[in-house]
Amino acid sequence: MADSEALPSLAGDPVAVEALLRAVFGVVVDEAIQKGTSVSQKVCEWKEPEELKQLLDLELRSQGESQEQILERCRAVIRYSVKTGHPRFFNQLFSGLDPHALAGRIITESLNTSQYTYEIAPVFVLMEEEVLRKLRALVGWSSGDGIFCPGGSISNMYAVNLARYQRYPDCKQRGLRTLPPLALFTSKECHYSIQKGAAFLGLGTDSVRVVKADERGKMVPEDLERQIGMAEAEGAVPFLVSATSGTTVLGAFDPLEAIADVCQRHGLWLHVDAAWGGSVLLSQTHRHLLDGIQRADSVAWNPHKLLAAGLQCSALLLQDTSNLLKRCHGSQASYLFQQDKFYDVALDTGDKVVQCGRRVDCLKLWLMWKAQGDQGLERRIDQAFVLARYLVEEMKKREGFELVMEPEFVNVCFWFVPLTLRGKQESPDYHERLSKVGVLRCSPYPLGS
Amino acid sequence: MADSEALPSLAGDPVAVEALLRAVFGVVVDEAIQKGTSVSQKVCEWKEPEELKQLLDLELRSQGESQEQILERCRAVIRYSVKTGHPRFFNQLFSGLDPHALAGRIITESLNTSQYTYEIAPVFVLMEEEVLRKLRALVGWSSGDGIFCPGGSISNMYAVNLARYQRYPDCKQRGLRTLPPLALFTSKECHYSIQKGAAFLGLGTDSVRVVKADERGKMVPEDLERQIGMAEAEGAVPFLVSATSGTTVLGAFDPLEAIADVCQRHGLWLHVDAAWGGSVLLSQTHRHLLDGIQRADSVAWNPHKLLAAGLQCSALLLQDTSNLLKRCHGSQASYLFQQDKFYDVALDTGDKVVQCGRRVDCLKLWLMWKAQGDQGLERRIDQAFVLARYLVEEMKKREGFELVMEPEFVNVCFWFVPLTLRGKQESPDYHERLSKVGVLRCSPYPLGS
Repeated sequence: MADSEALPSLAGDPVAVEALLRAVFGVVVDEAIQKGTSVSQKVCEWKEPEELKQLLDLELRSQGESQEQILERCRAVIRYSVKTGHPRFFNQLFSGLDPHALAGRIITESLNTSQYTYEIAPVFVLMEEEVLRKLRALVGWSSGDGIFCPGGSISNMYAVNLARYQRYPDCKQRGLRTLPPLALFTSKECHYSIQKGAAFLGLGTDSVRVVKADERGKMVPEDLERQIGMAEAEGAVPFLVSATSGTTVLGAFDPLEAIADVCQRHGLWLHVDAAWGGSVLLSQTHRHLLDGIQRADSVAWNPHKLLAAGLQCSALLLQDTSNLLKRCHGSQASYLFQQDKFYDVALDTGDKVVQCGRRVDCLKLWLMWKAQGDQGLERRIDQAFVLARYLVEEMKKREGFELVMEPEFVNVCFWFVPLTLRGKQESPDYHERLSKVGVLRCSPYPLGS
Repeated sequence: MADSEALPSLAGDPVAVEALLRAVFGVVVDEAIQKGTSVSQKVCEWKEPEELKQLLDLELRSQGESQEQILERCRAVIRYSVKTGHPRFFNQLFSGLDPHALAGRIITESLNTSQYTYEIAPVFVLMEEEVLRKLRALVGWSSGDGIFCPGGSISNMYAVNLARYQRYPDCKQRGLRTLPPLALFTSKECHYSIQKGAAFLGLGTDSVRVVKADERGKMVPEDLERQIGMAEAEGAVPFLVSATSGTTVLGAFDPLEAIADVCQRHGLWLHVDAAWGGSVLLSQTHRHLLDGIQRADSVAWNPHKLLAAGLQCSALLLQDTSNLLKRCHGSQASYLFQQDKFYDVALDTGDKVVQCGRRVDCLKLWLMWKAQGDQGLERRIDQAFVLARYLVEEMKKREGFELVMEPEFVNVCFWFVPLTLRGKQESPDYHERLSKVGVLRCSPYPLGS
C-alpha cells in the first residue's frame, strides 16, 4: 500500500489546502482585523452562555464537515469572540493588535516547532537569546540568563524556585521536608500568582508574608524590614522578596532601591514582578519608575501586555551567569539532550525549563521590534502615558466620575457615581452603595501612534 | 492632542496593515506551507550557529525597518527554520501540518484573548468545555473535569499536585514541611517530566520511586507492589502512581488494569501520562492498548502530538466532580474573578490553573475535529500504525538495519549498522561501536491520508 509518497504530507491535496487557508485568512482579515479594530463595530456581540452554545453548535461528531461549513464556523467563532484589538477594548492588561507581531505569530504557527534544541529550532534558539539579551540590557545588565515562560505567573514561580535552589541546592533532590520553614515577602498589592506559586511549589501560602503598601499601593520598605525580623523571630528563614513594578489594579511601582537595600542587608533574593510595568524601561521619560531594577536577581516582564506582542510573551530575566537556571531545572534527559551533538549543546535551552515542549514566543516580539525599533516602541509607551493623562483630565471635566487617585502609570482607577449618589459623599452608606457599581480600571493603549 | 479617534487602533493605517499581513501570509503559504511540505524541498537548510547568526542579523536596533526589509526577514526566518510539517521530518513526537488546525491557530492569534473568564473568552470557554467533554468520553468518563495546560510536563505536575492536595488539603496553606515524606511511583521508561515536576513541586526527586519495566518497556506491576511496600517500610506515604501510555522512546503502554488494581488496593491516585499514546483512544482497532484507562484519576493527553493539532495542545483530564481543580489551584483574585457577575461564574475557569493569562488551545483541535469527524481522526491513527508496520517490513528487507524490538505502537526503534560492523554481532565491542552511531526512533505520521 504505502509508497514513499504516502508518507505524511499536507492532507493530500496542496491546492485544496492553499484554497482553504486563503479563504480562512480572508475571513480573518475582514472579520477579526478590519471589523475587529473598527470603532464603528462592536467590541463583542454578547450572548448569554446557553444561547451562545446553541449558536455555535459545539458538539464534535462522527462525521466531518464540508469546507463551506468550516468557513462558516470560522466566521461564527470570530463573530461572537471579544475583539481584544478593538480601540474600545479596556477589559484587561493586554489589548491592541500590532500587525508585525501578528505576522510573527502566524509564521510561528505555520512552522510549529518547539523551542528546546538547536537542531529543531535553530532560528528561534538564537533569536530568543538575542531578545533576552536586549531585555536584560534595558534592565541594566550586560550579562545574565533568562527564558520565555508560559505567562508571568510561571515566571514568578521560576524566580521563587531558583531562589530556594540557590540557597538549598539539596532541595531539588530531597525536597522541602529537610529544610527550615522558608519565608518570602511581597506587598498586599502584589499579583495573586505569588500566593498560587507558593502553594504549587510546596511552600504553602503561609510562607508568603504580606508587607504593607502605602496609600498609592507601593510596598513600605520599613514594614518589609519589620516583617523579615518577625519571620526570623518565628524561626523561619527569609529567602526572597518579590517587588512589583506596575501592580495589577493601581499600577503602583514599588520603591526598588529601598527594597534592594533591605535585600542586600539580609542576603535575600530580589525578584521584581514587572510583568505589567517592565515595558516602561523603554521610555527615557518614565523609566525612572523602575530605578533600582538593575539590583534585582530576577525580573519577570511580559511584552504581551503593554507592548502588545500577543499572548503569550513572558520573559524571566536573570542576573545570574552561573547556569543556575539549567542546574535548577535540568534533568539531562538523554533522548533529547544528547551531549555528543555536532554543535555547542549550550544552545539546547530546553533543560532550563520545567516544560518539555515549549512554544516559540520570541519571533512576534523580535519582528515587531525590528519594524518599530527602540524608538517606535518608546513612542508607544510614552503615548500610553499621554492617553492616561488625557483620560484623567476628561474625567475631571465631567460629572459622575471620581478618581481613586492621580495615576503615575497608565492604570486609571475611578468610581462611576450614578445620578442617585452624586453629591451624597457624606451619606453613611455612600461607599457601600458606590461599591455596588464597582471600581473601574482602564488602561489606554497607544497602538494608534 | 488626543481625541476619541486617537485611542488605540490598528497602527494608524488599515490599508497598510492589510497589505502587510496579506504579503506575510503569501510568504507563509509559499515558503512554509507549499515548499515546507514538499518532498522535493529540504526539511532544513542547515547552518552552523555562528553562520546563522550572521545570516539572520538578529540585533534589535534603535531604528525601525521598512516593510520590504521586514518581509525579507520573514522569508529568512522560514528559510532557515526546520519544516516540521515536511513529509521527511521524523525528529520529534510531533509533525505534520493539518490545514484546519493551522486555520484555527491563525484565528486564535488574530483574536488574541486569554482563556480565563467568560466575559473575555465566551466562545473559547464553552468550546474548551466541549472539547474536554469529548476527550473524557473517549477515556470512558461521562462526567469529570479538566483543563488545557502549556504542555504535558505541566499536566503531569498538575496531577501530582492534585493528588497530594486531595490527600492533604492543608498543604496548600501550610506546605510540605508538616507532611510525612511522600512517595510517587513511575517506571524507568517514564517521561523525564515526572522527575522535574517532583523537584519543582518541592517533593524532591527522591520522592520518585522508579519501578522496573519489562523488556518491552512496560511497567512491571509486581515490582510496583514491591516498591510500594518498600516505601512504606521506610516511613514514606505512597500517594500516586504515574503510568505511561506510549513511552517516549519505545512507545510502550503500561498495563493499566493491573496497575489500577494495585492503586485500588493501596488507595493511590492513578495518573496516566498518555501525552503521546492518548490519541490511540480514537481507534477502535488499537484502543485496547489503553484498556483500564477509565480507572485513572487523571489523564494527560497531548493532541499536539499524534493528532497534529499544533503546539501546544495538552489536556489534563480528571474523573473528579468535586471541583478539586479549582479548590487546589484557586486563589479567588477579586479583581478578575468577581463573584457578582451577571452570568454563572463557574464559567470563569481561570482559577483552575496556576497560570493567570492562558492561551486558547482548544480552537485548533475543535476546528480540525469538526472538519475530520471522529472517523477522519480514527483513519489517521490507524494509518499511522499501518505506516509503522510498513517501515518495519521495509527494514527487514534491507541490510544494515537492526530492530530494537517489534513495535506495538508507531515508535520504530532500530540500529543502523554501518558496513564495517555488519555480520560482526559476535564481536565483543559490537554494541559499544554500534551505540556510537546511535539508536534511532522514527514515528510516522499519517497526514497524507
